Amino acid sequence: MKKTKLSLLDQINNPTDLKKLKRSQLPQLCDELREFIIETVSRHGGHFGASLGTVELTAALHYVMNTPYDQLIWDVGHQAYGHKILTGRRDTFHTNRKHKGISGFPRREESVYDAFGTGHSSTSISAALGMALAAKLSGQHDKQHIAVIGDGAMTAGMAFEALNHAGASDTNLIVILNDNCMSIDQNVGALKDYLTHLTLTGTYNKFRKNVGKTITKLPLVGERSKELLHRTKSGIKSMLSEQANFFEALNLRYFGPLDGHDVLKLVETLQYMRHIPGPKLLHVITTKGKGYAPAEQEKTLWHFPGLFDKVTGKIQKAIIDGPQPPKYQDVFGHSVVELAERNDKIVGITPAMLSGSSLKFMMEKMPERTFDVGICEQHAVTLAAGLATQGMTVFCNIYSSFMQRGYDQLVHDVVLQQLPVIFCLDRGGLVGEDGATHHGIYDISYSRCLPGLIISAPMNESELRNLMYTAQLSGLTQPFMIRYPRGQGVMPNWRTPFRKIKIGTGRKIREGRDLAILSFGHPGNFALEACEELEADGVNVALFDMRFVKPIDKHLLHHVFQHYRQLITVEDGTIIGGLGSAVLEFMAINNYHADVRILGVPDRIVEHGKVTELHKECGFDKDGIKAVVKEMLQQERIIQKLVKHESL
Amino acid sequence: MKKTKLSLLDQINNPTDLKKLKRSQLPQLCDELREFIIETVSRHGGHFGASLGTVELTAALHYVMNTPYDQLIWDVGHQAYGHKILTGRRDTFHTNRKHKGISGFPRREESVYDAFGTGHSSTSISAALGMALAAKLSGQHDKQHIAVIGDGAMTAGMAFEALNHAGASDTNLIVILNDNCMSIDQNVGALKDYLTHLTLTGTYNKFRKNVGKTITKLPLVGERSKELLHRTKSGIKSMLSEQANFFEALNLRYFGPLDGHDVLKLVETLQYMRHIPGPKLLHVITTKGKGYAPAEQEKTLWHFPGLFDKVTGKIQKAIIDGPQPPKYQDVFGHSVVELAERNDKIVGITPAMLSGSSLKFMMEKMPERTFDVGICEQHAVTLAAGLATQGMTVFCNIYSSFMQRGYDQLVHDVVLQQLPVIFCLDRGGLVGEDGATHHGIYDISYSRCLPGLIISAPMNESELRNLMYTAQLSGLTQPFMIRYPRGQGVMPNWRTPFRKIKIGTGRKIREGRDLAILSFGHPGNFALEACEELEADGVNVALFDMRFVKPIDKHLLHHVFQHYRQLITVEDGTIIGGLGSAVLEFMAINNYHADVRILGVPDRIVEHGKVTELHKECGFDKDGIKAVVKEMLQQERIIQKLVKHESL
Repeated sequence: MKKTKLSLLDQINNPTDLKKLKRSQLPQLCDELREFIIETVSRHGGHFGASLGTVELTAALHYVMNTPYDQLIWDVGHQAYGHKILTGRRDTFHTNRKHKGISGFPRREESVYDAFGTGHSSTSISAALGMALAAKLSGQHDKQHIAVIGDGAMTAGMAFEALNHAGASDTNLIVILNDNCMSIDQNVGALKDYLTHLTLTGTYNKFRKNVGKTITKLPLVGERSKELLHRTKSGIKSMLSEQANFFEALNLRYFGPLDGHDVLKLVETLQYMRHIPGPKLLHVITTKGKGYAPAEQEKTLWHFPGLFDKVTGKIQKAIIDGPQPPKYQDVFGHSVVELAERNDKIVGITPAMLSGSSLKFMMEKMPERTFDVGICEQHAVTLAAGLATQGMTVFCNIYSSFMQRGYDQLVHDVVLQQLPVIFCLDRGGLVGEDGATHHGIYDISYSRCLPGLIISAPMNESELRNLMYTAQLSGLTQPFMIRYPRGQGVMPNWRTPFRKIKIGTGRKIREGRDLAILSFGHPGNFALEACEELEADGVNVALFDMRFVKPIDKHLLHHVFQHYRQLITVEDGTIIGGLGSAVLEFMAINNYHADVRILGVPDRIVEHGKVTELHKECGFDKDGIKAVVKEMLQQERIIQKLVKHESL
Repeated sequence: MKKTKLSLLDQINNPTDLKKLKRSQLPQLCDELREFIIETVSRHGGHFGASLGTVELTAALHYVMNTPYDQLIWDVGHQAYGHKILTGRRDTFHTNRKHKGISGFPRREESVYDAFGTGHSSTSISAALGMALAAKLSGQHDKQHIAVIGDGAMTAGMAFEALNHAGASDTNLIVILNDNCMSIDQNVGALKDYLTHLTLTGTYNKFRKNVGKTITKLPLVGERSKELLHRTKSGIKSMLSEQANFFEALNLRYFGPLDGHDVLKLVETLQYMRHIPGPKLLHVITTKGKGYAPAEQEKTLWHFPGLFDKVTGKIQKAIIDGPQPPKYQDVFGHSVVELAERNDKIVGITPAMLSGSSLKFMMEKMPERTFDVGICEQHAVTLAAGLATQGMTVFCNIYSSFMQRGYDQLVHDVVLQQLPVIFCLDRGGLVGEDGATHHGIYDISYSRCLPGLIISAPMNESELRNLMYTAQLSGLTQPFMIRYPRGQGVMPNWRTPFRKIKIGTGRKIREGRDLAILSFGHPGNFALEACEELEADGVNVALFDMRFVKPIDKHLLHHVFQHYRQLITVEDGTIIGGLGSAVLEFMAINNYHADVRILGVPDRIVEHGKVTELHKECGFDKDGIKAVVKEMLQQERIIQKLVKHESL
């Protein structure tokens, strides 16, 4: 029976196969596609709600458009699972997000149907417009360029920049606004309210048509009325046709709102739209998690549920022995509430990562002091700066890789004014299955070059709490960055009392004779394990948790360079420009000479996989560190032998 | 007579003095203020047109608002000269933009009236909203927060992000849209067209009022008509009150358009608006250069004219003996045209710096292949990426410090996809009088950590041409960055034949025995002069122009480390994470040991002044380099003596 049910999807290896279906078969195909996604994600994991919401849109797009000649870009890419399945990746879809498997996001290297790699939000319109301009220059006037973008992603300024350009261009661009009122959490802001309003007031296009009819039918009495009516009518016409709609103000022809789960209506509309020249926008209303009741009800939970029983809707929890360390994000989330309860100047900011950052705990307890600003990292950073000028103590929580989106604001609005904003950079380091777009591995380098910015990373939960506590103490006159990774820490009993840390000081974790390791943040734990295992082999290694990469602990470094000829630095970030370089710069300035090995993320693009797999691949897990220690000591022994030999 | 004419302005040392004037005296004050700006800028230089356009707005704002309690933020800040003059800086205004003088932009350190430091565009609404939220939390319900932002700055996504948040907030925020149809060049994009439309169709508010009246007065005939009319009317009402206007769609109450040179009307409107709660926007129409005829006529030229004769309007040109080297920007501008004439895949992109980048030459010759996208660096970068996917060869020209605004797009859309976009980073290094916000000194560090990004800098005009030529040759499979400074090069005869450069190779400029200097980009010329002068003192120094900081020339570095014990690196960028660090990293990986001194911009905020003054201050001008060479050699001699002494 199952085989019969999946009979249509089984036949489709690419969009050409899809186009062979009769239009009336599309609803069945959509059912099968949805079922396939539910089945696979329930057993193999992945993003869930977003792709269920775009099943019909995906089928309709590939049915109508001439992909891959026509270029189709999925903004963010969470919602592109159906697209992957219909474009040749049905049989590899179970490897989704796994090490060496297919990516959870569209990737140009993976398929000719993935017109543009995505991951971060709101890039699709710019990319599609670039392609559309290229087509125009190349005389490919029939070519279509489609950006599918959510209402959450539409709040990012970058999308607006692209619309502003698109509206003044004469290109075959179709923006599909996939309006489900959600980012990962509920979408926020004035645009969301406006879109809701558009939807609730019914079909805008119909209204526009009726206004014309209405006025034509009004009886005219007397010249004065005629004139007034004329003014009204032409006024209405100009207002409605050019300005009435937010998108039409930007000169994009607006279509919608349309039921995004009516595949036949979508096919019909897209067939019509592809023959209309110029930039245009189709507003479709969809439901995140559509067709899977638990997901429709709890949209944030089912954005990324983990493995689950598809029949009962029960999400699997790992079976765990004994108490477990918490996630760093939860340590942040609970600790900021604790601090804010004592310090009424504290406010919290997140750009659309209320759940992901665990700032939701603060939002629940003190909503008036907690700001979810939407997918708007640029605004988040300068808003924080504005608040800080008024004496507020701002905890601005941004994922490391998304902070790249607010870099100029960090430099220009915070650092150059030395405003004491506290940045908590979650997902610092390799993030695992989300892959290259989401690894937060450049932050140490792009921050370390900025004057007067304090940059810290906790080695464990207690350190995170103490750094947060230290940062919010009054008297801070500099920006303060605290960077921590995705995932769990190491302390089941993490709610330790707050303790002030002297800014710019590291700590000795372990004495040692043979060599010194300097670590930054969580990888100190890998180094500690390595040291302990090396001890069993008779190798005695010292370990220092630098804690701050800026200001760096000069006292500690002088001690290290005076006592060790061999050093290893370990960080969960690129090996270019990070802790390792800071140590080398110190060495150069102070005329020390030592052998320094820098461990971290190598200077190449690292793909997705489990965090542990990636740490191993990059060589800074416990075993990687041990290997380098042994190699360096071996080398030293050889040199010592040579020296001895020569001096004989 | 002059004294009498300036009698009002002379009395005003702060806004409290201003408030003592009768309303009827404001026009005279505005005349005086305008005259003062013309007089001072003509003799001391500075931005010009923007501040002439905001004279009335400035006077009205300080007359009505309770500054500095009320917070006033000038977006970008080019237009804030009147504000500076009215807030205690009349007598120091002639030091504007000079070394140790007042800044050309608002700065918190400079005055309590400068609520927020600006320089880069489109930050004002976010900052003002942050302040407004702080006021709300602190119970300061009467406090006003005003962001003055141009129509050019409004195209940046960051402004939209802030509006989206503001519209959903309940704060005392007044956004003043200073609409003069200009960035530095003509403003572009769909929003500009929309604003023009709003202005041309007359006062929007009046229209809205009249529609209501019109419909009420229409005679009603029959139930059907009544119903239709009712639908029309309520339709209009809902459309107009909530959606009809772009800004009202974002839930900002819209006022305007208003003549921005009618100071009395501005005062009246602002007095009314400050009593209306919630976020709101006032659309004022102004003329850049208002009141000075030549500036009104040629707005781009008079954005920043240099010194001029205020009577004749004649702009001074420096008296120059013989042929001069061109500006680097012009070498770029002319060379890109030359290349594009031969290679029809080439397109050019600038985010609103058509004149500043000299991409205007390409726009004049081949407008269809040249894109000015507005103040939209984020969009510019991803648009470039989109074009590159289609086989176009994109020269994307962005000022170094503005590239910070497109950093995530550089990482996520270009680098991670290894798209062969060519970035020409103008204004790389210290830029001089524009100061800290505009120095392009972090680019080497924030770029060097990105995998597979080629990063180069030409030492002179010919090298710039060759790098551009090399980058556009077919077969490039990586992004390619070419970074050059503001100002002139060194070659009067610059239009040399194009020559291919092997990527990742430096060049030996000068042999030497005592020490080696490694330079990156234009400062190689300072180093060369230093070497030549040192030669006269019997010191023989080698000089290598690295040309690429990534991939770095390993062959060259092996040679250097094998032949020299003492090295100096010189770059026009921060000393943290740049060329110097790259050399240290190479040294560590290859187990070399040498004394390395890193010269560049120190790790602190460097203010404004002439470029030459700043190079000197930072210690990497000719004299600074000479001093370090001597100091290092002296040190070496002492060490050698000690070694000799010990070995005796």
